[in-house]
Amino acid sequence: MTASEIRALFAVAGRPEVVSLAGGMPPPDSLPLDLLSDIAARLVLTDAAASLQYGSAQGDVLLRESVVEVAAESGVHTHPGDVVVTTGSQQALDLLARILVDPGDAVLVESPTYVGALGVFRSYEAVVRHVATDADGMSPEGLRAAVAEERAVGRRVKLVYVVPNHQNPSGATMSSPRRDALVEAAAAAGVLVVEDDPYSLLGFDGGPIASLHRRDPGGVVHLGSFSKILAPGLRVGYAIAPPALRDKLVLAAEAAVLCPSAFAQRVVAAYLTEHPWREHVKGLRVMYRERCDAMTDALARHLPDARWLAPRGGFFVWARLPDGLDASALLPRAIQARVAFVPGSAFYAGDQGGDHARLSFCLPPPADVAEGVRRLAGVVTAERELRSAAGR
Amino acid sequence: MTASEIRALFAVAGRPEVVSLAGGMPPPDSLPLDLLSDIAARLVLTDAAASLQYGSAQGDVLLRESVVEVAAESGVHTHPGDVVVTTGSQQALDLLARILVDPGDAVLVESPTYVGALGVFRSYEAVVRHVATDADGMSPEGLRAAVAEERAVGRRVKLVYVVPNHQNPSGATMSSPRRDALVEAAAAAGVLVVEDDPYSLLGFDGGPIASLHRRDPGGVVHLGSFSKILAPGLRVGYAIAPPALRDKLVLAAEAAVLCPSAFAQRVVAAYLTEHPWREHVKGLRVMYRERCDAMTDALARHLPDARWLAPRGGFFVWARLPDGLDASALLPRAIQARVAFVPGSAFYAGDQGGDHARLSFCLPPPADVAEGVRRLAGVVTAERELRSAAGR
Repeated sequence: MTASEIRALFAVAGRPEVVSLAGGMPPPDSLPLDLLSDIAARLVLTDAAASLQYGSAQGDVLLRESVVEVAAESGVHTHPGDVVVTTGSQQALDLLARILVDPGDAVLVESPTYVGALGVFRSYEAVVRHVATDADGMSPEGLRAAVAEERAVGRRVKLVYVVPNHQNPSGATMSSPRRDALVEAAAAAGVLVVEDDPYSLLGFDGGPIASLHRRDPGGVVHLGSFSKILAPGLRVGYAIAPPALRDKLVLAAEAAVLCPSAFAQRVVAAYLTEHPWREHVKGLRVMYRERCDAMTDALARHLPDARWLAPRGGFFVWARLPDGLDASALLPRAIQARVAFVPGSAFYAGDQGGDHARLSFCLPPPADVAEGVRRLAGVVTAERELRSAAGR
Repeated sequence: MTASEIRALFAVAGRPEVVSLAGGMPPPDSLPLDLLSDIAARLVLTDAAASLQYGSAQGDVLLRESVVEVAAESGVHTHPGDVVVTTGSQQALDLLARILVDPGDAVLVESPTYVGALGVFRSYEAVVRHVATDADGMSPEGLRAAVAEERAVGRRVKLVYVVPNHQNPSGATMSSPRRDALVEAAAAAGVLVVEDDPYSLLGFDGGPIASLHRRDPGGVVHLGSFSKILAPGLRVGYAIAPPALRDKLVLAAEAAVLCPSAFAQRVVAAYLTEHPWREHVKGLRVMYRERCDAMTDALARHLPDARWLAPRGGFFVWARLPDGLDASALLPRAIQARVAFVPGSAFYAGDQGGDHARLSFCLPPPADVAEGVRRLAGVVTAERELRSAAGR
């Protein structure tokens, strides 16, 4: 599934009659809109000289100071000088690939992995290799073996990309011992770890496990985002990188966009300074947990033969369809039945994942989430009956 | 002069005691702040579902419709489907280079050229070649010769980059016959033209000359920006490209940042729809003309031995210092004397331009512009006296 196919899917998923279990989109009505409206209005009137002007390529220092506090909640210890603000964390990933990856270089990713990362690595003509991954995260032995095999065929391994918390799409969270082992294996192999972490503050029970970055700040780049705990429409993310790489990121960011939006950065900085944002995030956890419960309850009721890992946070259920049904083939019928999802093949560089669907519970309210699953189950059942009638 | 040196310069230039003739920054107090404040506040409250959400990688359709009207004022005929919204026009330039330029490929630029474009081309390891340029713009004969010579040494020529209106840094505007000749020469050579056009609506007398894009829509990519006629802190620019290239731009933009900021785009779209923005731009022209007059009057009075082309719009005077004085060497003393400018060497890929200074008249009010020139003249005079005393 290409980026443009996913774009077309999201266009369909946005129709009002369709229940979208497709996009990883936070519901804007969960935001403190009055407060954000006041902040935006005030910044234009009283802070135009900074908010509406060009700014630093590394990012606004007020925001970088606030990022240090947000990152601390995700178990990352850093200081404002090591933070690079980016146009969403997607840009951080893109700039890292631009700095590090030459065509034909290998990058290692989880199985499955985030579709947007695949898009970046493809665009730099990397060889993307999936490493064995279980419910505890990427296998350190798998990492070691992959590095050895890639090097044996003469490829340089430039980075290993992981989403350790409430992974997109699998929902899995890497255990603490696994984090230690993975960071150690990567360091021993001399491979940079890119830790993409938009979901760590959205765990349903308890705070996040200490980041990979904290275990090896010199060998891990940590990427964070305000798209899930605030609003994606502002496009504010960040990278926390070792100094040499941080300097390269700033130069690359400057060539790419001159500087991130000062206005968006100041809106986020003011929000973080003036609002009890930790309380807001607690509220988001409750909201997403309800939606997740609605989804897993509906799956258990309507699609008992499907298999999934119960998420402990984040936005996604990664469901294996019963009887080896192909999710891509099912999608057009699902959309006809007014429910959308992303077929699992989108999350692999090769042709795996066809029997999985990524079901997002983040955007629709719980009753709609349940109704979406009910509709999907209807399509699955019809398909199974069709197969059975055909004697397959 | 590297990007980081320029960054350090701008940090110094931002000190309150320094008159900055350095940055190409529009004065935020020239903006309709009340209106922008109202728009931002209202969009958060009434349009959060779109403004604060992920959006299309090509850009918001409301904004793309407005861009068509703005582009029409710059002499570009297009439609919303051919517009790609970018995070400032810098990103459009970056994405074009990413799509088109492989390391070692040649790109052709004016002499001098925009420093931000040099940063992009360097980052893609292009061979940047300056083409002979006079007060009417780049020489078509120079273009033909450069293409022939680059091809003779086995290099592919991927694009020719021009700023045809009120060029940064020279202030020159390409004449209409020259535009025809240049577009024809580029088409005959099979080389794409990138027309970077942030200043066309800021001419002091009369409307802009019809764009290069209009003369050959299939062979020219037109880049526009809201950084000069509205506010750089929003980071909203655009590219208007032939369909095949437009599609590649959208895919590259998606990999780079997923989508541009929906909030920034909707602010710009609402501003363009609700405000008589053409009147606002007229006011900007009057304001910048006054500042330009203040600069050229002060230059004539205090630095009569300098040489410059009187700008007919835009932000910049490109001044040759008297007696072959070196602008980079002069800069530290100028900053000591509380005036900042950008040395001419920044606008060349090689070691030319040392005897020129780019003097921006956009940001300080007219009296400050004049005072800045007076301070600069003092530094120049002191340097000449020092030289004379040393018998050089």
